[in-house]
Amino acid sequence: MKRILTLVAASLAIAGSLHAQELANFNFGGRQRPVISPEIQNDSVTFRLKADYATIVKLSGSWMPNPYGGTIDMQRGENNVWEVKIPLPEPEIYTYNFVVDGVAVNDPQNVYVQRDGTRYLPMLIVPGKRTENYGEATQHGTVSHPWYDSKILGYARRLTVYTPYGYEANPKKKYPVLYLLHGAGGDEEAWISMGRTAQILDNLIEKGLAEPMIVVMPNGNPGQQAARTLGIPEKQIDWRSEQFRNAYVNSLCTEIVPFIEKNFRAIPKPASRAIAGLSMGGGHTISASILYPELFDYVCPLSAAGDATPEQLAALKKAGVKLYFLACGNTDFLFQRAEDMHAKLNNLNFPHEYFVSEGGHTWANWRLYLNTFAPKLFK
Amino acid sequence: MKRILTLVAASLAIAGSLHAQELANFNFGGRQRPVISPEIQNDSVTFRLKADYATIVKLSGSWMPNPYGGTIDMQRGENNVWEVKIPLPEPEIYTYNFVVDGVAVNDPQNVYVQRDGTRYLPMLIVPGKRTENYGEATQHGTVSHPWYDSKILGYARRLTVYTPYGYEANPKKKYPVLYLLHGAGGDEEAWISMGRTAQILDNLIEKGLAEPMIVVMPNGNPGQQAARTLGIPEKQIDWRSEQFRNAYVNSLCTEIVPFIEKNFRAIPKPASRAIAGLSMGGGHTISASILYPELFDYVCPLSAAGDATPEQLAALKKAGVKLYFLACGNTDFLFQRAEDMHAKLNNLNFPHEYFVSEGGHTWANWRLYLNTFAPKLFK
Repeated sequence: MKRILTLVAASLAIAGSLHAQELANFNFGGRQRPVISPEIQNDSVTFRLKADYATIVKLSGSWMPNPYGGTIDMQRGENNVWEVKIPLPEPEIYTYNFVVDGVAVNDPQNVYVQRDGTRYLPMLIVPGKRTENYGEATQHGTVSHPWYDSKILGYARRLTVYTPYGYEANPKKKYPVLYLLHGAGGDEEAWISMGRTAQILDNLIEKGLAEPMIVVMPNGNPGQQAARTLGIPEKQIDWRSEQFRNAYVNSLCTEIVPFIEKNFRAIPKPASRAIAGLSMGGGHTISASILYPELFDYVCPLSAAGDATPEQLAALKKAGVKLYFLACGNTDFLFQRAEDMHAKLNNLNFPHEYFVSEGGHTWANWRLYLNTFAPKLFK
Repeated sequence: MKRILTLVAASLAIAGSLHAQELANFNFGGRQRPVISPEIQNDSVTFRLKADYATIVKLSGSWMPNPYGGTIDMQRGENNVWEVKIPLPEPEIYTYNFVVDGVAVNDPQNVYVQRDGTRYLPMLIVPGKRTENYGEATQHGTVSHPWYDSKILGYARRLTVYTPYGYEANPKKKYPVLYLLHGAGGDEEAWISMGRTAQILDNLIEKGLAEPMIVVMPNGNPGQQAARTLGIPEKQIDWRSEQFRNAYVNSLCTEIVPFIEKNFRAIPKPASRAIAGLSMGGGHTISASILYPELFDYVCPLSAAGDATPEQLAALKKAGVKLYFLACGNTDFLFQRAEDMHAKLNNLNFPHEYFVSEGGHTWANWRLYLNTFAPKLFK
């Protein structure tokens, strides 16, 4: 038996095939995978890829000054393991890939993978103060994927819901709820996968920095029932038409909120509801706060692709908001919109926090914003 | 703005980089990705990969006679899109990858990806009778990931739990529970990702073929708190030692079952408990049924890496079992074990179903088994 498995393993290695499936159930007879990647040592990180027949192998990473164009050459070493050692980037979660003879290749040694839309990307997690809440805490909340029925959009739709540690053990306790919205290209898994929501909330709650809360992450694409990974065909409708404009925001405020308050132990009061969203989801956040000014006492547009008139903001101010947290990166292509919103809020003497970070339209910033505003909610 | 984005897109294409992250939020100005892969047309399927500078591009797929060694050459076409058209394999869910100059590459056009252990693999889903329950049903159950506290194993551990459609809407209804165990190399996401449990149960329940039930998928590796994707270090202990042998099975039967019956609306009776598992999980299934003969009225070892003595089976028969469903592929390397178990059960006049399928130690078989035995449970 062992001999057969060794042969299978050998032909696997030769073909460069990664058909794990049933092979995962085999014992490779002590054969160690020799390649370690990425390997962080002190102030450097080394990336490695075994590529026997490649001509040019490069590394591309989101920490690079021009992450979408730039690459670094890797050097062929012993055993055709290509390698490059670079100075460790600042603490953050980065994504990277190899480029083998012009084709993007994920790191087969790295199990830490994010999905962004249709793309799977290996992560490089650089430890430090900035990322201390992005790893696993000791106490874990529960992540679930219930489906709510939308009469407005015409089908059942998948949600991601985080309930905090202790939710199961305290069956009488009720919790406040944060509605957390993704950007264009994202879906109901974006904040969990790229945003590290479960890890950030677990850590903040375990440290006593944030109130235990439920976090609801809907799918903000009205044509989608669920993330495209599930293979459900999308509905082809002009969602920007007069008839369907705000259909998703209406579904959020009149269908998702009631669904959550019926099926989870949520406190059904404005003072226990927060809404936050990035980019397109920042636009949804602004729209929801304007269309339903009584619903949320905490409103957090992040790098928002959205706008509001002074009249709308005045009405929101009158309805009462406990926290208006406006955040944007100082090189974000939407930065001017944030500046304009900040000015409008100032003109109205609308109390708010304006949080400007370094950098642009990035998940590095959105994780930072969540880690920053979550402790301010429901207090 | 549009011009800048076009430049970004162009440099993205040139570098072959796949840094989706924030790019997912951009509109590429109507630029269509020209490559479609895989493309099923009538009786064929075409795979395509754009690879400008590659020398040799091959395709490797789990439908091939020697899936771990075999590959098919692809041909360079217009625009450096490599292509191969093959006869459509029989209806099933397959995995595949490209091999570019010797390096395994996932299909960047295919969002349907399975994770097996540390490996991500694109899926080819061939429609047909065999796979009709593997796609999305209309009515969806909820998949959640609660953590249970294990005193036996010394930490909190992550579960996957499926609750059927209607669970939220019928807050007084109680459900039977299937405990569904993965094999070596798997984790608490294996049955959901590769086994299509949610889809299979959704379809069977929607068609009235199976009772609405809860399905609990624990992590069967006692050294793991959760799937390795979460990055929690493993506990290094000799789990086969006298002290720790059966530690996981004990945790399953004395910790997970009570956790589920406390926190979910489960019917806490043997007639409403089933246990099934594949390979190593088949061994766990046999062990659990022997060590706790009163606990489960339905016992389903699948391609099981496990065994029981006639005395143990006699005790189980005496305790009473409503269904003993033994399944294995006729070319599985564990087939003789299934044959031996079948003979032992016959010798004891232990009523059981013996389900022998074509093929070996594969997820194709394990999906088939789940689809076959789930309708027989709790009736």
